[in-house]
Amino acid sequence: MASGKGLEEVVAAQTAISDIDGKLGKLWYAGYSIDALAENSTFEEITHLLHNGRLPTQDELDDLTEQMVNDRETADFVSDLMPTLAEQTSPMSMLRTSVSAASAYDPDGWDQSPEANYRKAIRLISLIPTLIAYYDRHRNGLPIVEPNPKLPHAANFLSMLSGEEPSQEMAEAFDTTFILYADHTMNASTFTARVVASTLADMHSAVTAAISALKGPLHGGANELSMRMLQDIGDASRAREYVQDLFARKEKIMGFGHRVYRHVDDPRASILRRFSRELGEAAGDTRWYDISEAVVQIVLEEKGLRPNVDFYAGSVLYYLGLPIDLFTPMFAAARAAGWTAHIREQYADNRIIRPESEYIGPRDQRWLPIAERASAEAAGQEAAS
Amino acid sequence: MASGKGLEEVVAAQTAISDIDGKLGKLWYAGYSIDALAENSTFEEITHLLHNGRLPTQDELDDLTEQMVNDRETADFVSDLMPTLAEQTSPMSMLRTSVSAASAYDPDGWDQSPEANYRKAIRLISLIPTLIAYYDRHRNGLPIVEPNPKLPHAANFLSMLSGEEPSQEMAEAFDTTFILYADHTMNASTFTARVVASTLADMHSAVTAAISALKGPLHGGANELSMRMLQDIGDASRAREYVQDLFARKEKIMGFGHRVYRHVDDPRASILRRFSRELGEAAGDTRWYDISEAVVQIVLEEKGLRPNVDFYAGSVLYYLGLPIDLFTPMFAAARAAGWTAHIREQYADNRIIRPESEYIGPRDQRWLPIAERASAEAAGQEAAS
Repeated sequence: MASGKGLEEVVAAQTAISDIDGKLGKLWYAGYSIDALAENSTFEEITHLLHNGRLPTQDELDDLTEQMVNDRETADFVSDLMPTLAEQTSPMSMLRTSVSAASAYDPDGWDQSPEANYRKAIRLISLIPTLIAYYDRHRNGLPIVEPNPKLPHAANFLSMLSGEEPSQEMAEAFDTTFILYADHTMNASTFTARVVASTLADMHSAVTAAISALKGPLHGGANELSMRMLQDIGDASRAREYVQDLFARKEKIMGFGHRVYRHVDDPRASILRRFSRELGEAAGDTRWYDISEAVVQIVLEEKGLRPNVDFYAGSVLYYLGLPIDLFTPMFAAARAAGWTAHIREQYADNRIIRPESEYIGPRDQRWLPIAERASAEAAGQEAAS
Repeated sequence: MASGKGLEEVVAAQTAISDIDGKLGKLWYAGYSIDALAENSTFEEITHLLHNGRLPTQDELDDLTEQMVNDRETADFVSDLMPTLAEQTSPMSMLRTSVSAASAYDPDGWDQSPEANYRKAIRLISLIPTLIAYYDRHRNGLPIVEPNPKLPHAANFLSMLSGEEPSQEMAEAFDTTFILYADHTMNASTFTARVVASTLADMHSAVTAAISALKGPLHGGANELSMRMLQDIGDASRAREYVQDLFARKEKIMGFGHRVYRHVDDPRASILRRFSRELGEAAGDTRWYDISEAVVQIVLEEKGLRPNVDFYAGSVLYYLGLPIDLFTPMFAAARAAGWTAHIREQYADNRIIRPESEYIGPRDQRWLPIAERASAEAAGQEAAS
């Protein structure tokens, strides 16, 4: 069976975790509309929903919340790596290395039972914000802030980063951003996680691989680049000139268009747009929101493209005080809920994912002794080094 | 476009690196038959072939060999991790973590030019045996053995593991095993590497993800399990009873059958079979070869299945003195040549790999306040924890 490049329109897996209608601009988690979830639920509830297909009862939510609070701490070996990683490496490389290193310290060890894998999943979801925050505190020469067991997942992350308890409004905006980034069907990192899980490699391996994929600028980097663009523009009055220049140079604009949502709004963008405005108003500085609105208007006029989740996430996360290079790690922290749910779903009904390739190189080459071989120039090729 | 589970028969990429004819039982690297390459080439030559599509001239081979020798050393940060990793974690977890950690110390850093990526590829290929050997020496409480610049890649690996320079025969058998494991079209780890590369994530991320996939027992673990089976059998006279018992219990036999080679021999197995015999004869102990032969005969009679590369690799690597739990890491060391070539091929003509999923869960769920939600029991589901 042939397919287009990038496996576009090829169904790689069945899932009960999330669903998209790209024509209607709808996203559902386990059958619940993302609008209802963003409005009414918390990230802890969403974690339960993605993993169990149901919103939790109060007892279940209390249990899960307690588990997540207890799982925020890192092993000493992993936290001992942080000063060096903070000095030497980028945030996503740090996350890839430290999640991989954490595997040795998971209390369930080699146990790959469904129960152990659920516990490992919750541990990873709970741990990732701690890793990011410790890294950020170290690189800024600040003392680390221990997790605060009284705060929910998202609010605690902000508290570990800044050392201050966030306002109710900030906590809510961040929690909703976590919800919106938690899953999105078969994106490249989730697909990577499922391919790795399909070899029956362990949960930490599959999440490490997903982080590796999210690190790529075509996948996880767009929210960072969107915010950097807003900074470059600097003021809403300069938006038209900037965007027109960009298009004149045939450059791509970050945070616009989506392979899935083609002629409709990304439903996640609409929600974050409101937070961008509200956070700007609360901060008494709507500059980033204003620039965003101007850019959206101009890009729609010029190219007919609409903003995706990453575009408004840029200004929202910036208003929340996140350093720009932690936007993609924050995406990883939220998507960890979806990745781990997909990994468990893959394990539950597995077949190894091994597609075919089509050979397009030379055929029937005859092995020649080394003295008789043509050089790169003689072979008419460019040398690779 | 629908597809079977596991993307079977779906073409996920075009490649000029390797090709298989599963009906004829043929494998080619860049158009050269694996038989000719195994007979005449070295792993260094194969590395050049997979990356450049041509066997090297003498000057090119000399350059590459020098580069590979120079790239065997690890950064201090990475070698400082080894004592703890040796104590705490499995060999493939160690490799995943240490390759990820090594990324911060690559001299080409953030440079993702084709030239930089070729250098990063050669560095990773050169480094992996060192990581494995240091780990093995540490866990055995032995002093580490520095790379020997006078030895070729495979022989140096044996020397770093055992502290002794291998015989010519052992060096050749190991070098050939490296060649046979170097690439195999779109297997799960190579595909993982290409999916990660398709987000334009860096070379180290893509290789870390490939290691994560190879760690799975359905992919990289078969050579280890094959050897453990030979040990369980213990003597060729017990092979029939053992295999028949296995099949009576409906268990799978490791190292037999292949999704690609269906009714023919895996060409790599035929080559390793000869090495298994020769190494056994040289050691004055053909026990593992004899058991292998008996098992092959019985499995063919009983199930019509033929041995794949992993089956004979088991006894070959064991005769070469490798600890059994390093067989999969050795596979990674060899496949790193293919992974990195595929990653560079993906970068050179990229589109992000983002397939679709088919939603099979509930629809139109109505959000309910937490007090009104049904418990797992009431919902007729089993709780996940």
